[in-house]
Amino acid sequence: MAANPLVSIVGVDWGTTHRRAYAITGDGACAREISDSDGALACKGRFPAALDVALQALDVHGTGVVLAGMVGSALGWHEVPYVDSSVPVQDLAAHAMRVPDAAPGVSAIIIPGYRVRNAQGVPDVMRGEETQLLGAWALGHRSGWFVLPGTHSKWVELHEGRVVQLRTYMTGELFDLLSKHGTVAAAAGGVAPVWDETAFAEGVKAAGHHALSHQIFSVRARVVCKDMAASSTTAYLSGLLIGTELKDVLQGSAGTGPQGTFKLLGSPQLAAHYQTAAQHLGLSFDILDAKAAFVAAVHHIHLNWKPL
Amino acid sequence: MAANPLVSIVGVDWGTTHRRAYAITGDGACAREISDSDGALACKGRFPAALDVALQALDVHGTGVVLAGMVGSALGWHEVPYVDSSVPVQDLAAHAMRVPDAAPGVSAIIIPGYRVRNAQGVPDVMRGEETQLLGAWALGHRSGWFVLPGTHSKWVELHEGRVVQLRTYMTGELFDLLSKHGTVAAAAGGVAPVWDETAFAEGVKAAGHHALSHQIFSVRARVVCKDMAASSTTAYLSGLLIGTELKDVLQGSAGTGPQGTFKLLGSPQLAAHYQTAAQHLGLSFDILDAKAAFVAAVHHIHLNWKPL
Repeated sequence: MAANPLVSIVGVDWGTTHRRAYAITGDGACAREISDSDGALACKGRFPAALDVALQALDVHGTGVVLAGMVGSALGWHEVPYVDSSVPVQDLAAHAMRVPDAAPGVSAIIIPGYRVRNAQGVPDVMRGEETQLLGAWALGHRSGWFVLPGTHSKWVELHEGRVVQLRTYMTGELFDLLSKHGTVAAAAGGVAPVWDETAFAEGVKAAGHHALSHQIFSVRARVVCKDMAASSTTAYLSGLLIGTELKDVLQGSAGTGPQGTFKLLGSPQLAAHYQTAAQHLGLSFDILDAKAAFVAAVHHIHLNWKPL
Repeated sequence: MAANPLVSIVGVDWGTTHRRAYAITGDGACAREISDSDGALACKGRFPAALDVALQALDVHGTGVVLAGMVGSALGWHEVPYVDSSVPVQDLAAHAMRVPDAAPGVSAIIIPGYRVRNAQGVPDVMRGEETQLLGAWALGHRSGWFVLPGTHSKWVELHEGRVVQLRTYMTGELFDLLSKHGTVAAAAGGVAPVWDETAFAEGVKAAGHHALSHQIFSVRARVVCKDMAASSTTAYLSGLLIGTELKDVLQGSAGTGPQGTFKLLGSPQLAAHYQTAAQHLGLSFDILDAKAAFVAAVHHIHLNWKPL
């Protein structure tokens, strides 16, 4: 029996460097949540205890636990094999791994990630985002393009819960690398960046005209030629990188097309940038709450996957 | 009078971190050369003396000196305004800046770089490469696409010495950044890289199917999915980046086309990689000797620009 009878299940979004854990009631509400920096890397060698700490912090005992994210990678607790696109998101829990070494009384599963190959046979992978997508599906968003922006921005095309396409864009990581090192960082000249909406829009519009390895150099060229202030390089680079994602996805998506609506699962700050970029291209996003989606996914698993 | 009567002019390719200086005879041969790490950054505040040291090392006194490269940038000795594409390479010396503060008896000019805007109005710039191109022109290579590979790979389309297009690709810099930091470096797993020709070819072939910010992630995805050994990530990344340049240039070059021959000015090692990449795309490069081109450019200026 759960010590707190309201809580039916716990979900943990356990990433590389951070984790969030949610105590979820029988009607799918989030009763309590915690967030800490006990990511998969930090928990090496002490995963059972690390999970127990989270459950105690949530004041939960004896419920099932659903784990998602890098906790299921080679760097995590147990490596769970990826599933491929033959498994729709609503069936993910059937492919979960039961954790054999959780603390006594804890019944936990790890949700698998996806490995999806494109038309050229090149693979792409995700871990954690599949559970967000299951949540979107449970909330009624079952088809179309979804973007989960971040360090590694994931673009996923779903058709009734089936993953049709998966593409990772290293937008956040490239932004971070280029802002700290090399020519682009030097072009900023140590000046404090200001959020220049015009420069952001110019970056979005310029994106995709040529290869990114060329266009990134235009950050420097525009400053050298006095087309842009050094303080605006950050906004322009952000526009270039986000615009590149949008145009690359649009290019191969005749069905979705410029009239289509995309769905975004992410933080309000990133959502605002993507929304602005989309508007410059005549597109719009439905913004879905990332936490609500994760909670809905775990609730769906609780209702539908009896063995847990 | 020159102390060594054979030497008629000196050329210095003065980059950000390195420089090469050549003593050139009246018939255009290179009599002596030096190479050191007294690049423009290192010489701040002591350019006159730094030039004198080079001339003494070459045992040259009283000749004219042609300087090219970042020595003419805001970080250099004197900032020389860029010329635009209305000035053909064979007329560059007419737009050179005479150095007002060289050591007594030294008559030196700095060759300007180019600023060229593309069809969208976005600028690109080069300093130093224009002198290599003048040399190629002087050696009879006057039209077509030229690539000068390196940290910032320059692609230049010339038509009878006029710069039609200029595009910088940050190939070398991105290769260096991604090999040292972040997800791609981690995918290499600290394993010593081997030069895997098959992985290089796969990178070249994959390039251009999607935006580079997506394709770079495939380095990790391929390793995670065991499509590629960790030791091959370097070769695959190199293939992706070089292939991206080639395909991006081909895409907008109907006139040059896949049947065309490109000209490459660069080191033998980089030339070999570009030649291999080109072969995978059914293209070929004429390889021009970068030193011979620079020497030919300075000799051309000596013969044609009387005031020096």
